[in-house]
Amino acid sequence: MGKIYVVGMGPGKEEYMTMEAVTALDLSDIIVGYTVYVDLLRDKYKEKELLTTGMRQETQRCELCLEKAKEGKVVSLVCSGDAGVYGMASLMFQIAKDDPDMEIEVVAGVTAALSGGALLGAPLGHDFCVISLSNLLTPWELIERRLRSAALGDFAMAIYNPSSKSRPDHLKKACEILSEYIDGTRPCGIVRNIGRDEQSFLVCTLDELSGVQTDMFTTVFIGNSRSEIINGRLVTPRGYIENEK
Amino acid sequence: MGKIYVVGMGPGKEEYMTMEAVTALDLSDIIVGYTVYVDLLRDKYKEKELLTTGMRQETQRCELCLEKAKEGKVVSLVCSGDAGVYGMASLMFQIAKDDPDMEIEVVAGVTAALSGGALLGAPLGHDFCVISLSNLLTPWELIERRLRSAALGDFAMAIYNPSSKSRPDHLKKACEILSEYIDGTRPCGIVRNIGRDEQSFLVCTLDELSGVQTDMFTTVFIGNSRSEIINGRLVTPRGYIENEK
Repeated sequence: MGKIYVVGMGPGKEEYMTMEAVTALDLSDIIVGYTVYVDLLRDKYKEKELLTTGMRQETQRCELCLEKAKEGKVVSLVCSGDAGVYGMASLMFQIAKDDPDMEIEVVAGVTAALSGGALLGAPLGHDFCVISLSNLLTPWELIERRLRSAALGDFAMAIYNPSSKSRPDHLKKACEILSEYIDGTRPCGIVRNIGRDEQSFLVCTLDELSGVQTDMFTTVFIGNSRSEIINGRLVTPRGYIENEK
Repeated sequence: MGKIYVVGMGPGKEEYMTMEAVTALDLSDIIVGYTVYVDLLRDKYKEKELLTTGMRQETQRCELCLEKAKEGKVVSLVCSGDAGVYGMASLMFQIAKDDPDMEIEVVAGVTAALSGGALLGAPLGHDFCVISLSNLLTPWELIERRLRSAALGDFAMAIYNPSSKSRPDHLKKACEILSEYIDGTRPCGIVRNIGRDEQSFLVCTLDELSGVQTDMFTTVFIGNSRSEIINGRLVTPRGYIENEK
């Protein structure tokens, strides 16, 4: 029996991976993943078997890992960001349900809420929510309910998948819902192309956010009621009680 | 003028740090932090100036970094987990407010929601909240409101600081609030001493969670309505719509 690592690569480049993730890849016979992410590893792991599947072929990708691990191979299933947060880890556990002896080790990585947050400043310095606006696998009504709940709880928010070609207006719709609860001057921010050479960030208000162009490589941040812009960075204080000594 | 890195070290050992974090420490003249975390770096960085301040002395720690950076030094302010999530990054920006030219670079790290989640399985596979039960800097009423909001939004949850010596019953109180909205059979889990040799995890129900002993080194996870236990691991599916193909 082999073993399956589900490895979060962080935002892309090797420098953003943990050393634990690099070790898992080093120990693997086979690396499996979406083409774009496996390509990032091609130079370093020339001697290993690299297997790719296309976008949306997540189930096939996990089945391939299970099949190879049952043949006795050590397999790393790679994903961007963290392995668990909208990642492949949960699907891998589901696909391997009938193989209780298969060893599955999840290797955490830096998800966009953290890597994007670092670039923007410290938007998630207090309790926060992570919400995806993709309704591919989630009913839009539930996404709306989560936005409302997050606003009512005064959570800071990191918003993934703010829009795509097939749903260009999701962020605008989300901003409209949040505006029912949150003042239009609330400090917000967006980060584009995290971990790539062309990465950039922008701080803005909730009102301005509604009109900002975003795509699948954008992560959006909404401050809480105490967030402020300090020297161009979005900062959410660690507490509500001033001056902890 | 020097520079300040605010560096998330992840759960502790060097293998859980990103290479970006290691590089920041390598480039620094001075490393500043809480005694426990700086001690982890003492062997590797013998030749550097290592400065420590005690627990709760966060403001002094940031002021020390700013003072040294103004003297022209490159300073790393280290924290466990991520630099932003309940970390030192937001306080560092606040303390350096009147020094707009001071360069502050935040280096993200793996926060306990991710490292603990990986150990437990994939509890945060869909939208989630991170909530701290510490009322040191946050009114307890707001913490209660956040728990209620998170339950209403069917978020998976990672709960930090579930209890401490001065507030041993916070997790029990939180479970009582969540039980108003969530069935007692809801799959949950806890992780102890993440990233240390004695790390361990436990899956349980919400009812059972209420009686579990926790401390400052415990992270608690609450599944969403679709979470399940698969081969002893806590798994939250990536979506609500079956079989995305």
